[in-house]
Amino acid sequence: MDFIKDYTLFLEKEIENIKFPSNPSNLYNPLTYFLTLGGKRMRPMATLIAGDLFDAEIEKTKYAALAIELFHNFSLIHDDIMDKAPLRRGKVTVHEKWNDNIAILSGDVLFVKAYELLAKNDHKYLLPLLACFNRTAVEVCEGQQLDMDFEQREDVSLDEYLNMIRLKTSVLLGAAFEMGAIIGEASEENIKNIYAFGVNLGLAFQIQDDLLDLYGESEKVGKQKGGDVLADKKTILSILAKSSANSSQKEELTQIQKEIDPDKKINNTLQLFQTLNIKEKCISVMEEYYFKAKKSIDAIETESSKDKLLTLFKILQQRQY
Amino acid sequence: MDFIKDYTLFLEKEIENIKFPSNPSNLYNPLTYFLTLGGKRMRPMATLIAGDLFDAEIEKTKYAALAIELFHNFSLIHDDIMDKAPLRRGKVTVHEKWNDNIAILSGDVLFVKAYELLAKNDHKYLLPLLACFNRTAVEVCEGQQLDMDFEQREDVSLDEYLNMIRLKTSVLLGAAFEMGAIIGEASEENIKNIYAFGVNLGLAFQIQDDLLDLYGESEKVGKQKGGDVLADKKTILSILAKSSANSSQKEELTQIQKEIDPDKKINNTLQLFQTLNIKEKCISVMEEYYFKAKKSIDAIETESSKDKLLTLFKILQQRQY
Repeated sequence: MDFIKDYTLFLEKEIENIKFPSNPSNLYNPLTYFLTLGGKRMRPMATLIAGDLFDAEIEKTKYAALAIELFHNFSLIHDDIMDKAPLRRGKVTVHEKWNDNIAILSGDVLFVKAYELLAKNDHKYLLPLLACFNRTAVEVCEGQQLDMDFEQREDVSLDEYLNMIRLKTSVLLGAAFEMGAIIGEASEENIKNIYAFGVNLGLAFQIQDDLLDLYGESEKVGKQKGGDVLADKKTILSILAKSSANSSQKEELTQIQKEIDPDKKINNTLQLFQTLNIKEKCISVMEEYYFKAKKSIDAIETESSKDKLLTLFKILQQRQY
Repeated sequence: MDFIKDYTLFLEKEIENIKFPSNPSNLYNPLTYFLTLGGKRMRPMATLIAGDLFDAEIEKTKYAALAIELFHNFSLIHDDIMDKAPLRRGKVTVHEKWNDNIAILSGDVLFVKAYELLAKNDHKYLLPLLACFNRTAVEVCEGQQLDMDFEQREDVSLDEYLNMIRLKTSVLLGAAFEMGAIIGEASEENIKNIYAFGVNLGLAFQIQDDLLDLYGESEKVGKQKGGDVLADKKTILSILAKSSANSSQKEELTQIQKEIDPDKKINNTLQLFQTLNIKEKCISVMEEYYFKAKKSIDAIETESSKDKLLTLFKILQQRQY
């Protein structure tokens, strides 16, 4: 697991070294602020790991890794405006600390900075990297739009929900691995497999996030237990509950949504979910994606050790719930 | 002038042919709507004209031209949110017709679409095109931020104002010409000169816009006469007035800002501006940039005819005020 510590340190240093001009300060200060809020740096790490797997040096993969991280942060800054989120990683969001206009515009400029980093790659990888990056950026926007659309709908199916989180969160992890593999000059087949690994891992990870919100140990999760339930957020849990419920249980779900007392609301939800076996159903969907992710690792053909991929896989899979 | 009609028709057809997916409709419908609101298509035309000057076929320059137009529209969609503008080109803005969130996100995806078009260029021009495009996109964001910052300040100098409009509007016209010249494989010197032409032309054009708002024939300008005055907007006129006024005239300016009757407000402004020779001072700054633009045309070394550049120059210069 030492490599995770090493990569994290490397990435933190590289991110710290991304210097923005001092003026206009209202444009650039929010970026320095937001980029140093922390985060797991899982996506840029994926690029470094994929590069390493296909023998590309870290100095060659770092620009793509940083481009992915900057894009991710751009999308978070804009998502936070749209979601009216007051906090991100426990700190005040950009639109709250400054205002919506500044958050829109500094997000925009961060997006350009991602492309600037992308353009620093060796010329010969530029076209496939751009193709991967553009395709993914479009998908992430589509996913965010679907997420907003779904908030207005009561009939979102499991498949629709899975497609939404695939677009909104998972394809970016897939692209992060893909870009490392492109720079490592991996075969088309291997690129396809490592991309599939990332997407399936991302899906499993996101489902696990939904699970941990209600069933995680709140100290470890680092946020209020049942926050999604209290906010009546659409998650895989609420969607599975709705589709498993009979008509009286559906009525019960509606009543729970109206409950004002937070403890009661969570307890009533837990009770109904237990009757409906929601936790088990959700785990089974999640395990399916972890299984697919594991199969994608197996399908990668290389002489190099897959240890890092497998370690990352296990760390994510073993998050406690 | 026939070439302007031809290029416009060509561009309208190409823009019409940019098809977006049908889903999510809340993401893509605003783009189809906004791109067909019209506009002068001055920027993509600049790319085609520059390409033509350096013997690049229109089929080779069109992707860069369209990328510039999409970027321009992306920045308008986001600017309209920030400025809370109800109308654009006489039609309802995206954030008004839909909402702020949709305007943020469809703007974002339009930005990616611009990069997708850019990536369609011949591989050998990709790096310089990306460099030009990224540099310009950053500058446009900086210009918009300065514009917002200036709204909160009372002491904006003429130089600061000129720098702001250079970033916010003129460098994009410069970049549009530059990209056509890059694809036309123009010399570094020629690229520099056609870029300078675009920037200076853009500055003169923007100053003329400020002038026309108060001194144009409102039927020709197509908007309410003195709209900037009524909205207390910072323009080159108001900045020149402030810097030319003595202390009692400064007091008069403050009083005028408080005037509620629109006709009185405009008439009082016109009167004070006449005493201060604001129109003449403004024309003199504008002419300086038209002069610089003309000198940049002269500096371009090519066997081809510069007729199209000169025609465009004259059309813009002769807008009536």
